Amino acid sequence: MANAIDDLASAFAKLPGIGPRQARRFVYHLLAAPASERAALAKAVGELGAAVRQCPECLRFANGSGPVCNYCADRSRDDAELMLVEKDQDLAAVERAGTWRGRYFVLGGVLTLSGKGAIREKELLKRIEKGLADSGQTALKEVVLALSATSEGEHTADRVRELLSPYRDRIRVSALGRGLSTGSELEYSDAETVRAALRNRHES
Amino acid sequence: MANAIDDLASAFAKLPGIGPRQARRFVYHLLAAPASERAALAKAVGELGAAVRQCPECLRFANGSGPVCNYCADRSRDDAELMLVEKDQDLAAVERAGTWRGRYFVLGGVLTLSGKGAIREKELLKRIEKGLADSGQTALKEVVLALSATSEGEHTADRVRELLSPYRDRIRVSALGRGLSTGSELEYSDAETVRAALRNRHES
Amino acid sequence: MANAIDDLASAFAKLPGIGPRQARRFVYHLLAAPASERAALAKAVGELGAAVRQCPECLRFANGSGPVCNYCADRSRDDAELMLVEKDQDLAAVERAGTWRGRYFVLGGVLTLSGKGAIREKELLKRIEKGLADSGQTALKEVVLALSATSEGEHTADRVRELLSPYRDRIRVSALGRGLSTGSELEYSDAETVRAALRNRHES
Amino acid sequence: MANAIDDLASAFAKLPGIGPRQARRFVYHLLAAPASERAALAKAVGELGAAVRQCPECLRFANGSGPVCNYCADRSRDDAELMLVEKDQDLAAVERAGTWRGRYFVLGGVLTLSGKGAIREKELLKRIEKGLADSGQTALKEVVLALSATSEGEHTADRVRELLSPYRDRIRVSALGRGLSTGSELEYSDAETVRAALRNRHES
Repeated sequence: MANAIDDLASAFAKLPGIGPRQARRFVYHLLAAPASERAALAKAVGELGAAVRQCPECLRFANGSGPVCNYCADRSRDDAELMLVEKDQDLAAVERAGTWRGRYFVLGGVLTLSGKGAIREKELLKRIEKGLADSGQTALKEVVLALSATSEGEHTADRVRELLSPYRDRIRVSALGRGLSTGSELEYSDAETVRAALRNRHES
Repeated sequence: MANAIDDLASAFAKLPGIGPRQARRFVYHLLAAPASERAALAKAVGELGAAVRQCPECLRFANGSGPVCNYCADRSRDDAELMLVEKDQDLAAVERAGTWRGRYFVLGGVLTLSGKGAIREKELLKRIEKGLADSGQTALKEVVLALSATSEGEHTADRVRELLSPYRDRIRVSALGRGLSTGSELEYSDAETVRAALRNRHES
Repeated sequence: MANAIDDLASAFAKLPGIGPRQARRFVYHLLAAPASERAALAKAVGELGAAVRQCPECLRFANGSGPVCNYCADRSRDDAELMLVEKDQDLAAVERAGTWRGRYFVLGGVLTLSGKGAIREKELLKRIEKGLADSGQTALKEVVLALSATSEGEHTADRVRELLSPYRDRIRVSALGRGLSTGSELEYSDAETVRAALRNRHES
Repeated sequence: MANAIDDLASAFAKLPGIGPRQARRFVYHLLAAPASERAALAKAVGELGAAVRQCPECLRFANGSGPVCNYCADRSRDDAELMLVEKDQDLAAVERAGTWRGRYFVLGGVLTLSGKGAIREKELLKRIEKGLADSGQTALKEVVLALSATSEGEHTADRVRELLSPYRDRIRVSALGRGLSTGSELEYSDAETVRAALRNRHES
């Protein structure tokens, strides 16, 4: 006879950052919870795959039934500006900031110094070619590397610059500005951050 | 149209210790995962309620189709010894220890100093009466309060002692021994722990 | 009879971030250490006041016997550029970055939202007046607010801008640039940081 | 010319758990503090060695000028009971508990699994012999191993038992009791702790 508690615990233990102990706590929580909560979770998980599709344009996961996601469909966004992000959550952080009016492309991962990890190289190049195929206003002019200020982020940026080198004559490649992020204290900031904060100082 | 990503994120956010951020990470993890992983999770959650039943005897959640859970059905366990635990996970910790051969009863909660929380008082009293109804060998002789060494645990123990006071002439009530738990350093141990460790010192 | 252990423990407990427990551990460490280590510490503490003086120009604490500290004495530094920092350790962080060639002034504190804290207002205004008294090359042209990206830092910056408002026609006031600091992940960056990082994006 | 700031910072950095950054913060704190605070610290450190002596009996560090420390001098304490602790702070924790009326001996360290560390073996044996030399009432009858419930503590206990084996016919060797320490939750307690807590359960 199957062991339903262990089965669910090991399914939960596959979620990022969840160990066997917490997975088990989830199971007991659901057992004590009203059947409706269990049903809602089962339903939401079950329908996820059908309800959410990967946008063929930016490769992010999004609800909806259109040919492309809402950001890619938005006529008011600037086709000349393309931002590359690691993952969907990073894209969400940029949208929360509310100032980016260009397009997006999700690399789907980062490259580690130990050579691990992978990004969507073929898809990226196809997307670049497509952007350059357009003419005039809508032609791709700038690619923004919106990667984390971590060694993985920098390692990934190096690889992307390598991939984009053949297009440098037509595309400007830029990276997010460095400086003091909200909450950082000067005393504990490293030299590179302080240099960037000085370089990027602004009227106050 | 429903928003499947937000729906699942809020369902995950109901799990203990999971905030909106991590809930969202779970969703994106499942989106990137093979459909089979999503299906397995949905199935495991959906079938949990049917496959697992609350044992009418000890009130723990357990797999299986018998009238009572395997511990309550186990003839080799001593009916005269009843251990009260807060929740199923505590019972599991005692089983891992492997030395308890008596029965269990799950209180289903703790009482906080601020008067919050609830335990299964009626069910506990019914269980005690039933234990005393038996005669001879199988009559209930000792109740072990296996509660955490926290203020909630002690507060709950007070209430249970209150409930058991009418039976004190027939039942011995005991509590788990205090002392140094694995990993504790003497320097940081509080007075009560040190006193118990001295009191419970053993041949070495 | 004095209690030397308690006396030293309470002296150590006055150091920032040191509680009674750790203070006591320091004492026992010194008791077990060679007398030479105790002597060295006593000597270093005792001589600190005499060996280190507060520079009358930038108000930082520095070794040496000259009329002003080495940074203020350095002819190669640009008198037209003045950086305001909260404390000596912040100044040290800027020096580690190695790109600032102007002068410094240590505010000696921050102002909290709850109205606590104090900065050297009179000394700051005197320093500004002095900078403006110079003529041509050496006249003060820019004041850089090098404060932490915290609510205290911003609160302090507000007050400094207020103090400097009468000089705005002659002095440019700037603040450190915001953006991703080393180690920050895009996913967890707040809106203000992401907006600044986008604004300050650079060729890559 | 010596650098008084760096000198003091490196002296502070020798204290347990203090890194270069915090050491430097201590220095700047003292620079900003009234001269009297610096003087008090220097004096307290300087006089420590003279004011505090290691008791020749229990080997702990203590104030006072008597031939032995106050605990060893206390006639009301039981010579038949000797407690072995790793360090002075552990002895202080036992005193805080307030129930131990026997004598102490400070081992002065622990032995690690990697074979590092050292304890006062010769001194311990001398102390045992001395205790056995006494006759009747005051003869040593029990040695309590009051060590932390860590691998180092157990490793050290093994060695001490080895050293004491020749005296087993005359001395009872005991160890602190294990169980739930204040604050431990049953769910997270390891098997050994739970078994001890069950073994040491008491009337409640």
